[in-house]
Amino acid sequence: MRAITTVPPSGGITLSQLDLEKGDGVKVRTLFTGICGTDKEIALGKLSFARPEKGRSLVLGHEAVGVVDDSSGYSSFKEGDIVVPMVRRPGGCRMCRLGRQDFCEDGDFVEAGIRGKNGFMREEFLEDPRFLVKVDDPSTVNLAVLTEPLKNVMKIKETFQFLRGRIPWYCQDSTLSCKNLYVFGTGTEGLLISMVFKSLGMNVVEVNRHPLGENIMKFLDDNRISYIDTSSERLDIKVRDMSMDAAIDAVGAMDVLKEITDNISNNGIAIMFGTSGQMPSSTFDILERVVDRNVTVVGSVDGAKIHYSEAIDFIETHGKTMHMDRIITGKYSPEDLKIFTEKEKEEIKKVIAWS
Amino acid sequence: MRAITTVPPSGGITLSQLDLEKGDGVKVRTLFTGICGTDKEIALGKLSFARPEKGRSLVLGHEAVGVVDDSSGYSSFKEGDIVVPMVRRPGGCRMCRLGRQDFCEDGDFVEAGIRGKNGFMREEFLEDPRFLVKVDDPSTVNLAVLTEPLKNVMKIKETFQFLRGRIPWYCQDSTLSCKNLYVFGTGTEGLLISMVFKSLGMNVVEVNRHPLGENIMKFLDDNRISYIDTSSERLDIKVRDMSMDAAIDAVGAMDVLKEITDNISNNGIAIMFGTSGQMPSSTFDILERVVDRNVTVVGSVDGAKIHYSEAIDFIETHGKTMHMDRIITGKYSPEDLKIFTEKEKEEIKKVIAWS
Amino acid sequence: MRAITTVPPSGGITLSQLDLEKGDGVKVRTLFTGICGTDKEIALGKLSFARPEKGRSLVLGHEAVGVVDDSSGYSSFKEGDIVVPMVRRPGGCRMCRLGRQDFCEDGDFVEAGIRGKNGFMREEFLEDPRFLVKVDDPSTVNLAVLTEPLKNVMKIKETFQFLRGRIPWYCQDSTLSCKNLYVFGTGTEGLLISMVFKSLGMNVVEVNRHPLGENIMKFLDDNRISYIDTSSERLDIKVRDMSMDAAIDAVGAMDVLKEITDNISNNGIAIMFGTSGQMPSSTFDILERVVDRNVTVVGSVDGAKIHYSEAIDFIETHGKTMHMDRIITGKYSPEDLKIFTEKEKEEIKKVIAWS
Amino acid sequence: MRAITTVPPSGGITLSQLDLEKGDGVKVRTLFTGICGTDKEIALGKLSFARPEKGRSLVLGHEAVGVVDDSSGYSSFKEGDIVVPMVRRPGGCRMCRLGRQDFCEDGDFVEAGIRGKNGFMREEFLEDPRFLVKVDDPSTVNLAVLTEPLKNVMKIKETFQFLRGRIPWYCQDSTLSCKNLYVFGTGTEGLLISMVFKSLGMNVVEVNRHPLGENIMKFLDDNRISYIDTSSERLDIKVRDMSMDAAIDAVGAMDVLKEITDNISNNGIAIMFGTSGQMPSSTFDILERVVDRNVTVVGSVDGAKIHYSEAIDFIETHGKTMHMDRIITGKYSPEDLKIFTEKEKEEIKKVIAWS
Repeated sequence: MRAITTVPPSGGITLSQLDLEKGDGVKVRTLFTGICGTDKEIALGKLSFARPEKGRSLVLGHEAVGVVDDSSGYSSFKEGDIVVPMVRRPGGCRMCRLGRQDFCEDGDFVEAGIRGKNGFMREEFLEDPRFLVKVDDPSTVNLAVLTEPLKNVMKIKETFQFLRGRIPWYCQDSTLSCKNLYVFGTGTEGLLISMVFKSLGMNVVEVNRHPLGENIMKFLDDNRISYIDTSSERLDIKVRDMSMDAAIDAVGAMDVLKEITDNISNNGIAIMFGTSGQMPSSTFDILERVVDRNVTVVGSVDGAKIHYSEAIDFIETHGKTMHMDRIITGKYSPEDLKIFTEKEKEEIKKVIAWS
Repeated sequence: MRAITTVPPSGGITLSQLDLEKGDGVKVRTLFTGICGTDKEIALGKLSFARPEKGRSLVLGHEAVGVVDDSSGYSSFKEGDIVVPMVRRPGGCRMCRLGRQDFCEDGDFVEAGIRGKNGFMREEFLEDPRFLVKVDDPSTVNLAVLTEPLKNVMKIKETFQFLRGRIPWYCQDSTLSCKNLYVFGTGTEGLLISMVFKSLGMNVVEVNRHPLGENIMKFLDDNRISYIDTSSERLDIKVRDMSMDAAIDAVGAMDVLKEITDNISNNGIAIMFGTSGQMPSSTFDILERVVDRNVTVVGSVDGAKIHYSEAIDFIETHGKTMHMDRIITGKYSPEDLKIFTEKEKEEIKKVIAWS
Repeated sequence: MRAITTVPPSGGITLSQLDLEKGDGVKVRTLFTGICGTDKEIALGKLSFARPEKGRSLVLGHEAVGVVDDSSGYSSFKEGDIVVPMVRRPGGCRMCRLGRQDFCEDGDFVEAGIRGKNGFMREEFLEDPRFLVKVDDPSTVNLAVLTEPLKNVMKIKETFQFLRGRIPWYCQDSTLSCKNLYVFGTGTEGLLISMVFKSLGMNVVEVNRHPLGENIMKFLDDNRISYIDTSSERLDIKVRDMSMDAAIDAVGAMDVLKEITDNISNNGIAIMFGTSGQMPSSTFDILERVVDRNVTVVGSVDGAKIHYSEAIDFIETHGKTMHMDRIITGKYSPEDLKIFTEKEKEEIKKVIAWS
Repeated sequence: MRAITTVPPSGGITLSQLDLEKGDGVKVRTLFTGICGTDKEIALGKLSFARPEKGRSLVLGHEAVGVVDDSSGYSSFKEGDIVVPMVRRPGGCRMCRLGRQDFCEDGDFVEAGIRGKNGFMREEFLEDPRFLVKVDDPSTVNLAVLTEPLKNVMKIKETFQFLRGRIPWYCQDSTLSCKNLYVFGTGTEGLLISMVFKSLGMNVVEVNRHPLGENIMKFLDDNRISYIDTSSERLDIKVRDMSMDAAIDAVGAMDVLKEITDNISNNGIAIMFGTSGQMPSSTFDILERVVDRNVTVVGSVDGAKIHYSEAIDFIETHGKTMHMDRIITGKYSPEDLKIFTEKEKEEIKKVIAWS
């Protein structure tokens, strides 16, 4: 079968011919795989921790949806079930044994398509049924390829709900309708974050440093999410008179952290998800505001099986009404390897269709 | 009566003659007042937000212990009671109305001896009984002047205990005995933090960038707290093979934040209390580790009445056995105004005795 | 206009002619009102705490959905908006001032249609916009009359999520898919509870002591909720080999509390919502199991504005797919006063259509 | 060596001669063992779940303090260390593997001196160092025999602090000084509960249904804990005008549960620890108040190693000032077997001195 492979950590991208692995597991036929920044970095040889499962090459792909071709006697699945495979697989630490490998204590895990385990950019794969999550509504199969990036948002939501418990962090009327959330980044993760937190009843403001294309602007408008382009408008909550009660970052640049801590409200919550390695453009101090205002800055990475389930539920319940299809801006065949290196106009999420 | 005053925000320090204010309240005779970095900054005109209660001058002093001279009919106190006055007084926001002005949402509060309210560096003051906290054990009166700095630590402890709830953040045997806490700063706050967290059963490591004097070293040794002098030894947990599971900062320098995020464990908790305004010596990125390791960095400022009570309880129960008296390194008379500008050898906390 | 009134606490039920109250507020035209056990009890004079707003008679009705007829200059609403009015209005206690009158500390609140405030069983009413919650999707207007009973379930969910934090209360794989929830009662509240907790991924078992009609059985089957009829089958988890990890009661009988505590698992969570006043059929001891198994039994009453919002969101997202319309078993005109005293075959929720 | 043994579950009490077990472990010489209701029940053959470690007889005793005689090469202890052994030993469930066998999910544990493991009423025993907790201050060795009952209180405190997080459950000034806690039972556990919660700053009221002896009354007075004798005074908070904000039960009778739910405030927290099996004197309904007032009733059993540590810390810091020695009302030699069947006048805790 066809498979998209790389040779980590040096990179490169090849359409190879592979056999299905031998062994136990549910046989899944891949329908769609998404490509994201991590895939591109691996392909460019920029991700130092990328490593093969064995031998020298690694099948890419960690965002996927497929259909069960042979349930191999596992009663939890049957042929025809739509399924999403999980990326990170637990090691032996306390948190991994609790099913929370997203909080792995020692880094001793593998991640399909990234480190130590072949991914899903191939026509078929065998999978341990414990790491498959079922999609109930087959009509959402096109959106279900977003489950993997969306599960990160569901963990971010869990983190946010936990941190709010430090004080009665809600409005006079018990809702979140008076609270403004600034989301940094307008890629897939940024947009998914905006959707999920909008559905919690917050005022959501997207922030980036360039104008957006028509497609995204329409997505934001339809979901009543506003936008600040910091290339033309200063992000200064004093000027704008709209407090920054919480912030979530999907960019990963230190300058964004400065923008957040410069503006965030007392008792503000900032959840950091992006990691670009971008160094700050100047030195600065965040501590005075973080301390004097009781600000929380917390990192959130990955998500557990519960978050995959919640992501699928969100797609089934909000995917159509919130126009999630606008996030998928291109479908390609496995032969179109240039999508790993070229960027389309107004590109958000590119998807490879496998059949 | 004698009072130590300044003219904020321009500074200066004067021993003045004042009358007791008119009005309601319990009359308290001051026994001891501590002086801290904030007092020195106000005296030097470096604290821009310092402001008088009315007129032009401000009585300094926010760390105090006194004795009730006249309870003025308030039943909650009687003559002879040892009391500690609170610093921050609530405004009208939601959190202030809940008694948690340490989480004030709008900054609309006053702080005795700092902004908008006269402090306690005077022989007597009238006080609203709601803002006096009683010391039960008169034998701890000398240590009770540390209540105010210690109440900050009690809020830090509350914050730590809350944040631990994100996951089962404890050892295999349910205790904290396998967890290492690094405390940055060896001034009063740093040492008090070390004491309180040592009493929770953690391994506590103090960190600073110079050798310590004999007095502090003995204090640390007696309390089985270890010390790293980063001027002679690298703080690198890989080299030391002693993980940094949590960190608390009482320095307030961005370089310390970098040291923490460079070294902290997965799911680590960093609580920031210091604010020196020191800019980083170079640019750096903290996001990759904060995100990939689910690290929490949280600011904690001030404390509520409950924390004053807990501080007094801690002094009464651990003050003697943990040698808290070693933190007080000098007692002075109100006339010794040079203590605001000169630094003693091995100075930690200097105290003014008022009678 | 027509209005359904009673004379509390003695009861009775009359179709009266009333004028719209004078004063400020958004003018709402009533579309549907639901009737529930509380309405019937007030009508029968069995609810001792029922009381008029002023004078002697009270307009009944606390479950309602309407349409804005005149927004009276309030910018938060416009004509044509579909809205649900809240029942309980805050008093002056700490929790009421936080917007959490569902946790009122002193009982000093009014409840529309129940105590101290006229309800919504009338053609029109004026309402303070703070107590109106907007329905975004007009196609759910028929189901939106279930918002009020459903908001109770949303608070139950909040309570459940909070209590779970005592320990890592989840399955080996981080989800709730291994956890069995027993719901007692198959009226409106019981069925709504089952729906909401099913959507969290739990195995839900409905329990009652009689066979169910075809309509409810189909509702349960369609939602993959199982049913135990304790008139024909013993509720004994040892016999059934299906643990009771959590239980939620919408019956309010002490015998149900016994059934729960006799069967619930270690670290089990029982949330009590029903209050029928039914005395137990025999004396019994619940403490041995509650203590030895670390069981939590917690009462949950009412819900805050956030729960109304969540209820509307749930109706919009799950109402159709989970067949919520099967809960509404009859629509009547305001003239059909016999619906307060007669019970239909297979009746669950009866609704009065006002236009 | 001498050992006090029984033959569970039939009971009986014998002073036997035994050899020290063979195997690994720290060798501990027993100093004191406490006897409690459980020991008496086992001796009377009333505890159905009591069972031997092997063979037919069981060494009694689960409350103990000893001194390390031979650390057998384990570096965590040295000869002369004062130690308290833990009672419950973990099985293989998720919570046991987390070190929280007090939340054991499947009951698959052993308890020294009670079920499946020999206890400490013998001159010496070998112990796995993981289950020994060190007493730092040798001057508290007499009180340290109370560590085991006190560790239950520390878990109760953990439970209370957790449950308080449901809402801002504190006074206007952030403390607990306005909150009244009623403690039911004046035996060892009741008194220890009163001490610990008094130290949190609450108003504590002890309740029992008979007059107390002079010794206990003095203990309560010295600690400013008040007392209600319900044989002469009705427990009716309306009459007394002192709200019951929280309640902790160390009796275990259903009639106490009724007294609590009849009187407890809105949002009240009731923690149940006692289990006497006493049936209620009449049938009653607790649900109306539990539900309408959002009351929490939670069971708490046993404690984890962290709670043993906290108990030892509490004894070291509060034991002398709070007159904990008054709880120990008699010291006996191992030969005095009648102490298992006879009750002394004003008896609270009886202790056997082994050397």
